[in-house]
Amino acid sequence: MTAKRMQGVLSPVVTPFDQDLRPNGQKLVRQCRWLLDNNVGLAVFGTNSEANSLSVGEKRALLQQLVEAGLPPERMMPGTGCCALTDSVELTREAVGLGCGGVLMLPPFYYKGVSDDGLFRSYAEIIERVGDARLRIYLYHIPPVAQVGISLGLIERLLKAYPGTIAGIKDSSGNWDNTKAMLDTFQPEGFDVFAGSETFLLATKRAGGAGCISATANVNPAAISALADNWQAEDADARQAALDTVRQIFQRYPMIPALKAAVALYGGDADWAIVRPPLVALEAAQRDALRADLDAVGFSMPGL
Amino acid sequence: MTAKRMQGVLSPVVTPFDQDLRPNGQKLVRQCRWLLDNNVGLAVFGTNSEANSLSVGEKRALLQQLVEAGLPPERMMPGTGCCALTDSVELTREAVGLGCGGVLMLPPFYYKGVSDDGLFRSYAEIIERVGDARLRIYLYHIPPVAQVGISLGLIERLLKAYPGTIAGIKDSSGNWDNTKAMLDTFQPEGFDVFAGSETFLLATKRAGGAGCISATANVNPAAISALADNWQAEDADARQAALDTVRQIFQRYPMIPALKAAVALYGGDADWAIVRPPLVALEAAQRDALRADLDAVGFSMPGL
Repeated sequence: MTAKRMQGVLSPVVTPFDQDLRPNGQKLVRQCRWLLDNNVGLAVFGTNSEANSLSVGEKRALLQQLVEAGLPPERMMPGTGCCALTDSVELTREAVGLGCGGVLMLPPFYYKGVSDDGLFRSYAEIIERVGDARLRIYLYHIPPVAQVGISLGLIERLLKAYPGTIAGIKDSSGNWDNTKAMLDTFQPEGFDVFAGSETFLLATKRAGGAGCISATANVNPAAISALADNWQAEDADARQAALDTVRQIFQRYPMIPALKAAVALYGGDADWAIVRPPLVALEAAQRDALRADLDAVGFSMPGL
Repeated sequence: MTAKRMQGVLSPVVTPFDQDLRPNGQKLVRQCRWLLDNNVGLAVFGTNSEANSLSVGEKRALLQQLVEAGLPPERMMPGTGCCALTDSVELTREAVGLGCGGVLMLPPFYYKGVSDDGLFRSYAEIIERVGDARLRIYLYHIPPVAQVGISLGLIERLLKAYPGTIAGIKDSSGNWDNTKAMLDTFQPEGFDVFAGSETFLLATKRAGGAGCISATANVNPAAISALADNWQAEDADARQAALDTVRQIFQRYPMIPALKAAVALYGGDADWAIVRPPLVALEAAQRDALRADLDAVGFSMPGL
């Protein structure tokens, strides 16, 4: 992986499926190009990518396809944390081998109430087994979904044991106090804190953080990345408020189906709305309401 | 799969690992033989098997090894429900091809707050893709761990759409009212209800249910299966009370490490205590306390 740290805004890129529910690599390549053109990095295989509805084999094949298409691996931070140790190792090894700038790693999330000792052991085993100095791990803290979180104590232990490898975190707790504690405690050590959405982008930048990794960067990439670049500008608070307005619209709907509905609507490709079970696509009425809500604030997705 | 329905007691067989954390198929074969000798069926790859810490490839290889060793596939109900649709299809197809008596299927459990529509679609896709009349699915309801559950309404829909395939359920909610509702509503239609532990074995048998699938059947198989066979005997309540005493001891410790510690202690093979991350083995003091607790009630594992 590269010496340059990943910064700014990344998107957990939504994954396109064909009608038979197979992932469509060509459409994913196009979507990733559009995001890069809008200054947004590629956190493929995130929660909002339906990554946990894809097998390891499917994810490896898609990642290879992105790199073969000429997209820059140093702008990629694929999600590689699975329930099974051996799956996480296999996928992480693939990402490192392809030269990805980092990986975003969920803790194993099936067993609940596990100890920090067990989670430390999980990350340590993966790091030792991958055994590659290029590996850069961004921890993924998303307790509302994974139900298994990353404590400050665990970060401290991991940073001490693997200072070159533990590169940062995505904090999707939705709890600013937690993000702030990470920023205060670990960012000065070069541990890069990414907010889990643009809601806290300005606050994160002002506190010295790296940026954000956000679902809605799939649909509003230019405006979000512009704030990351201009967080010291006079109109930064107004920019943040404008981002919030768009995000709040998407939050009225199931997020992943709504993001894909928007890509389908603004890109003129109805198949983009397809989701894998257990998710369901927006119903027609929801889709029309989303469109009306977005039109009302002058939303667009130029260049899609 | 077989015409004969699975009944009685099954164990989510604990999975032995070597010191390098690789599953040990030979030890698993031996453990399964011992369980069968004690009249307990093989719900391999359950929660207590650390199934979600194993890759699909590891599970397929282990299942093949069990069948190749001559163990009867009609006594096997492997867990095959994964987060990813394609993983569940691959593993279920393997189980059906090997002639397993049934499969125990978790709903996809990463995404939370999903709808019954989405879960119906998930099971339906798997059934259609496996496309084999021999498939018998036992739904797996374990909300304390999976956080995604199986509602009565979902069971009704699935039974109506796939009456020959939806064979029953394991209810690990720990809520007798829920188990009772399933027994009253669906057992008369030939939908076999298994309690999620022997705590409710006698009550389940008295209400017409099929039996139980229980973690502690790994360590106390003969006594549990004896109650399933003799639930109409005069001493049934006393037998239930004796089972409860043993189970309550194990419940004082982290369940999976405690089960494996017992197999290690009573079978004289320390490596049996090994668990994969994110779990951790019992500490020496816990292990000694467990042994003392079990000795105090005259517990043994004859023939192990």
